[in-house]
Amino acid sequence: MLHHIPALLSPELLKTLAEMGHGDEIVVGDANFPAHALGQRVHRMDGISATEAAKAILHLLPLDSFVEANAHVMQVVGDATASPPIFAEFQALVDAADNPAPIARLERFAFYERARKAFAVVQTGEFRLYGNLILTKGVIGAAP
Amino acid sequence: MLHHIPALLSPELLKTLAEMGHGDEIVVGDANFPAHALGQRVHRMDGISATEAAKAILHLLPLDSFVEANAHVMQVVGDATASPPIFAEFQALVDAADNPAPIARLERFAFYERARKAFAVVQTGEFRLYGNLILTKGVIGAAP
Amino acid sequence: MLHHIPALLSPELLKTLAEMGHGDEIVVGDANFPAHALGQRVHRMDGISATEAAKAILHLLPLDSFVEANAHVMQVVGDATASPPIFAEFQALVDAADNPAPIARLERFAFYERARKAFAVVQTGEFRLYGNLILTKGVIGAAP
Amino acid sequence: MLHHIPALLSPELLKTLAEMGHGDEIVVGDANFPAHALGQRVHRMDGISATEAAKAILHLLPLDSFVEANAHVMQVVGDATASPPIFAEFQALVDAADNPAPIARLERFAFYERARKAFAVVQTGEFRLYGNLILTKGVIGAAP
Amino acid sequence: MLHHIPALLSPELLKTLAEMGHGDEIVVGDANFPAHALGQRVHRMDGISATEAAKAILHLLPLDSFVEANAHVMQVVGDATASPPIFAEFQALVDAADNPAPIARLERFAFYERARKAFAVVQTGEFRLYGNLILTKGVIGAAP
Amino acid sequence: MLHHIPALLSPELLKTLAEMGHGDEIVVGDANFPAHALGQRVHRMDGISATEAAKAILHLLPLDSFVEANAHVMQVVGDATASPPIFAEFQALVDAADNPAPIARLERFAFYERARKAFAVVQTGEFRLYGNLILTKGVIGAAP
Amino acid sequence: MLHHIPALLSPELLKTLAEMGHGDEIVVGDANFPAHALGQRVHRMDGISATEAAKAILHLLPLDSFVEANAHVMQVVGDATASPPIFAEFQALVDAADNPAPIARLERFAFYERARKAFAVVQTGEFRLYGNLILTKGVIGAAP
Amino acid sequence: MLHHIPALLSPELLKTLAEMGHGDEIVVGDANFPAHALGQRVHRMDGISATEAAKAILHLLPLDSFVEANAHVMQVVGDATASPPIFAEFQALVDAADNPAPIARLERFAFYERARKAFAVVQTGEFRLYGNLILTKGVIGAAP
Amino acid sequence: MLHHIPALLSPELLKTLAEMGHGDEIVVGDANFPAHALGQRVHRMDGISATEAAKAILHLLPLDSFVEANAHVMQVVGDATASPPIFAEFQALVDAADNPAPIARLERFAFYERARKAFAVVQTGEFRLYGNLILTKGVIGAAP
Amino acid sequence: MLHHIPALLSPELLKTLAEMGHGDEIVVGDANFPAHALGQRVHRMDGISATEAAKAILHLLPLDSFVEANAHVMQVVGDATASPPIFAEFQALVDAADNPAPIARLERFAFYERARKAFAVVQTGEFRLYGNLILTKGVIGAAP
Repeated sequence: MLHHIPALLSPELLKTLAEMGHGDEIVVGDANFPAHALGQRVHRMDGISATEAAKAILHLLPLDSFVEANAHVMQVVGDATASPPIFAEFQALVDAADNPAPIARLERFAFYERARKAFAVVQTGEFRLYGNLILTKGVIGAAP
Repeated sequence: MLHHIPALLSPELLKTLAEMGHGDEIVVGDANFPAHALGQRVHRMDGISATEAAKAILHLLPLDSFVEANAHVMQVVGDATASPPIFAEFQALVDAADNPAPIARLERFAFYERARKAFAVVQTGEFRLYGNLILTKGVIGAAP
Repeated sequence: MLHHIPALLSPELLKTLAEMGHGDEIVVGDANFPAHALGQRVHRMDGISATEAAKAILHLLPLDSFVEANAHVMQVVGDATASPPIFAEFQALVDAADNPAPIARLERFAFYERARKAFAVVQTGEFRLYGNLILTKGVIGAAP
Repeated sequence: MLHHIPALLSPELLKTLAEMGHGDEIVVGDANFPAHALGQRVHRMDGISATEAAKAILHLLPLDSFVEANAHVMQVVGDATASPPIFAEFQALVDAADNPAPIARLERFAFYERARKAFAVVQTGEFRLYGNLILTKGVIGAAP
Repeated sequence: MLHHIPALLSPELLKTLAEMGHGDEIVVGDANFPAHALGQRVHRMDGISATEAAKAILHLLPLDSFVEANAHVMQVVGDATASPPIFAEFQALVDAADNPAPIARLERFAFYERARKAFAVVQTGEFRLYGNLILTKGVIGAAP
Repeated sequence: MLHHIPALLSPELLKTLAEMGHGDEIVVGDANFPAHALGQRVHRMDGISATEAAKAILHLLPLDSFVEANAHVMQVVGDATASPPIFAEFQALVDAADNPAPIARLERFAFYERARKAFAVVQTGEFRLYGNLILTKGVIGAAP
Repeated sequence: MLHHIPALLSPELLKTLAEMGHGDEIVVGDANFPAHALGQRVHRMDGISATEAAKAILHLLPLDSFVEANAHVMQVVGDATASPPIFAEFQALVDAADNPAPIARLERFAFYERARKAFAVVQTGEFRLYGNLILTKGVIGAAP
Repeated sequence: MLHHIPALLSPELLKTLAEMGHGDEIVVGDANFPAHALGQRVHRMDGISATEAAKAILHLLPLDSFVEANAHVMQVVGDATASPPIFAEFQALVDAADNPAPIARLERFAFYERARKAFAVVQTGEFRLYGNLILTKGVIGAAP
Repeated sequence: MLHHIPALLSPELLKTLAEMGHGDEIVVGDANFPAHALGQRVHRMDGISATEAAKAILHLLPLDSFVEANAHVMQVVGDATASPPIFAEFQALVDAADNPAPIARLERFAFYERARKAFAVVQTGEFRLYGNLILTKGVIGAAP
Repeated sequence: MLHHIPALLSPELLKTLAEMGHGDEIVVGDANFPAHALGQRVHRMDGISATEAAKAILHLLPLDSFVEANAHVMQVVGDATASPPIFAEFQALVDAADNPAPIARLERFAFYERARKAFAVVQTGEFRLYGNLILTKGVIGAAP
């Protein structure tokens, strides 16, 4: 345990978040997400919900201010405009972060393709449908 | 996710539990336990309490019936007879398992020494004091 | 040995099954299948038949409900409509699983190509001809 | 699959048997044997009985003719003269091998200590009690 | 040393032969063959002739019965119909194996390309010209 | 860069600090400290002073409240009571931390011996004499 | 610490600089640069500015005299002619080196692409905007 | 040190030369050659001239007799017909070898491309310009 | 293949012989020698006799002139003065080497203990009894 | 090649010298020194004399001023007072360094024992007898 760092974040995930630079992306995947097949670096957060995980990550991670959308969810298959309740929870977390912006949506396989290129994938224990989120790291302009 | 397997257990921890044999031990350590310094194999369960972790493990792991005590806690420093509330929770989990027996106590450094020889250490996010438990694996007498 | 887990599954194979996510595939190959040449991850089950292996795997693995066919066999070379007896045994195992569906057939080299992309290949000791099966993992909608 | 080689033996186990020299030992452990904690090299034979495993190994492995006992079982705890039925099956396998000799017995922890020094440990799926056997490799006096 | 296994085969080569499946190929290269540049897995047999090596391998390896040619030599450069004496020796070894067939010929660089895709390359100490052979593994239809 | 985390700490060092548990120790060594010869895990902070490094570490690391001294410096060789100015700077940093206590002193080779057992060693670019400090990690009693 | 070598350079970075040959490039990235995502070899210099890092590197590294530009900065996004103050500092360092030449500019993603092919990336703690520099190594014509 | 083997050749380089087969190539690069960026296997010979290195290598390595040119130098940039003195020294070494032939020339970047495909690159301490040489290995027709 | 180097020696063995220094020892073991259990580095020479192997090694390896015995055989068990014919063959090889001396004898387990400390063990295919030899490397006084 | 750094030093050796701290030792061994058997880290300098190697190393490495002797040679076997000419050359190199002191002598096996504990061993191509030297690193008191 360390001061100032959310207890949910493992030492390895902490290292990954610190290694990420401007524009690098991290995926928060739900319990059924194919993280090991897609991810370049995989971190397990079994038993933790996607929203808890995202909240802990956003406590440390700046969101990108250079792009239109710095967060993406996976579009509901067969209903591109549907909004499962977890979308609103994700948006609330992003709204409380440093560069709030509307979360964009990606078709299922486009989401997978982006996950494949992401810096890391976090596999949570989220059981709600469409509990997946991609976050794009921003910059910090002065030394903490 | 798999049928019949508690969602809290990571793939790596599942492999460790399956590799353990008769008499091998696993430590459930609290959030401040020096798992990486002591453990031969370390599994992280950040954000999960020691009792949730122990419950998930005991769903799969048979307890040893060849020894007097198949579970040990760390004795309170300076008060060997004290019983923090989590001791009773641990005992209830053991009582619900296949070979219930009274949990024994080990002095702090004897506990550390035993952890060093254990098959594995699980680092949980448990914040309650003395949230540490050692479990000894038993045998299964017929093919599942 | 662990409670609730089929004794045929090695610790490494257990880890692989747990790491697989929605849409990932696992191949059960017969004794002559070129598993080491094709497989990204190879698990040996020497001495175990393909049907025993498939049964143990399906005890834990949910089948995909998002696709038309969640299981595939290798089509008999030169006789695409032939049905060796083991095909019926495979179908019976799938019928007893959570998302039963008719098993589809793949031409020999298409089967190999799919095996190359699969998450893992299990090499069994199956001596019957065409004792090969590909299973597609599905989702689990609530925490076990 | 190869001609002349028992189908139960995995490629890795075959390599281990071939690497062993005069006096090196291999342990056939039952389903609850702590193979991963004790063994320098561990081979899994989940789902295979200890007698099937021993028979396949003895098809290739010469037994040592320089020592009084070239095979050892684990003595029943608390009853050093008891002979579980599997002891006779092991003896029959040794009797059918090239240097038959009476199997000797080792007290449980002496057996563990010897397993720790052995060249390799094979973890079988044997569920019968005391299904453990140590074999000592002998010499072959002419090129096959 | 093991019963039933040719003494020329190293433990590692034994493992490779056992890992190969239907259709996988192994190259027996002569003393000047660029094995380390081309081979995915390389086994050294310094001091052993290509015919001795091939004979030992064919004692264990079934040849493929699904293809027209299950063995290939390298065509003499500049004289595609020439037959160095070692070709007849190779043919005699194949004729004595389980699925005898006429050995086919490959132009030098086609031979190299096929070696690059082969499962393994064995570098022998063969000094005769064109002492190179590719063998294709077949199936075994019943448990040894 | 991350919010709330001192910019001086590398991702690897962050991971190390998070992996440390109660009672584990970290050494801050000066530019001439034999870190690679003594340290189990070595982190470089070339160009950073020992006091800057210690300050950044203490921003995250709780000091141990279970021991008399949770920080140690290396005693001046030949003058056990001497106090180079950097000792006072180290003391000021400890005084500003969560469990302030007087820093204890260790003879040079006792310091080396303790460094050898420490969880990690940080090699700074500190040029001042006796710019070495050992910190003992404490516990955090509630989830951040 | 060594004579003649800037104290800022870690042993690993020293090795990298020495391994580089004619035409190889090294990137000095600022605190937000995605070094771990792009770099083939990454060196951390947390807490050190890009100009301090570049100065230490140029103390050892010869600049290329065979190319028009042996140093490149990242062009300001949206204003290709803008010159942040750090550009002049970089130019002054290059001017003081052995083969001074005007620093060229690369569009942001062209800069990333070049970083991906570079021999190494140094991640500094530089907080000023556009604190990124690519240096091309030259030749040394006589033994030091 | 060994009998019959030039003292300049390291154990690793000796292994590389022995692993090379017919048609494989080795590059002798000068002190500024980008060996680590281009080479599949890199051997350092710091402090040794390219001609000393080539002489030691040619003492063991047969040159190819199947190709027109079994040695190549890098053409002088901007003057394809120029012949720096070291070219004549290289030619004298080749003339004294087993299959002497005129050394051919490659344009600088064609030389780099060929080095990238070579079996190995030797980085010498040669300071003379254009002190680079590629050698193609030939065959040995009888056992030494 | 290389000029001047016996064809029996693999690239890896060549490297080992070159890495050995004054006083380092290499064991030539027979087909039943427990090389993998005892040896720090093991080289296979399956199919090659111990005398062929020793001859090839002694072509390159200088014998030690600083010790009374620079070669040792394993004493016949139960008959310390017996001299199997292979002893005379070994002696003839040593007599033909640079520092000939009478070969000394070691009791079986003393021989094993020395093999455990040796630099390397070569496992040959020697089938004759007591075909084991330890050679001690000497010095070479001038550059080859 | 780099400015200010002797061309004889390889990138790996440079890294080793930079990693060494106060009191760490490096051995310069002659061509017959058993470097690979004794050394924790071994660097090859084939073809370079011990005095050239020592001179290049001492250009960068400060000698220890805290000990009576910061350099040791190996005493002539059988004549502890003999002084081979290379001893004087070593002394001259030390005299020209920053903390000159008389070189001490160690009996052969004491020298070996110290080499075993040293940070690294450099194997040179030195053919003169007793061309071995151990150097002890000192401190640098101000940033270069």
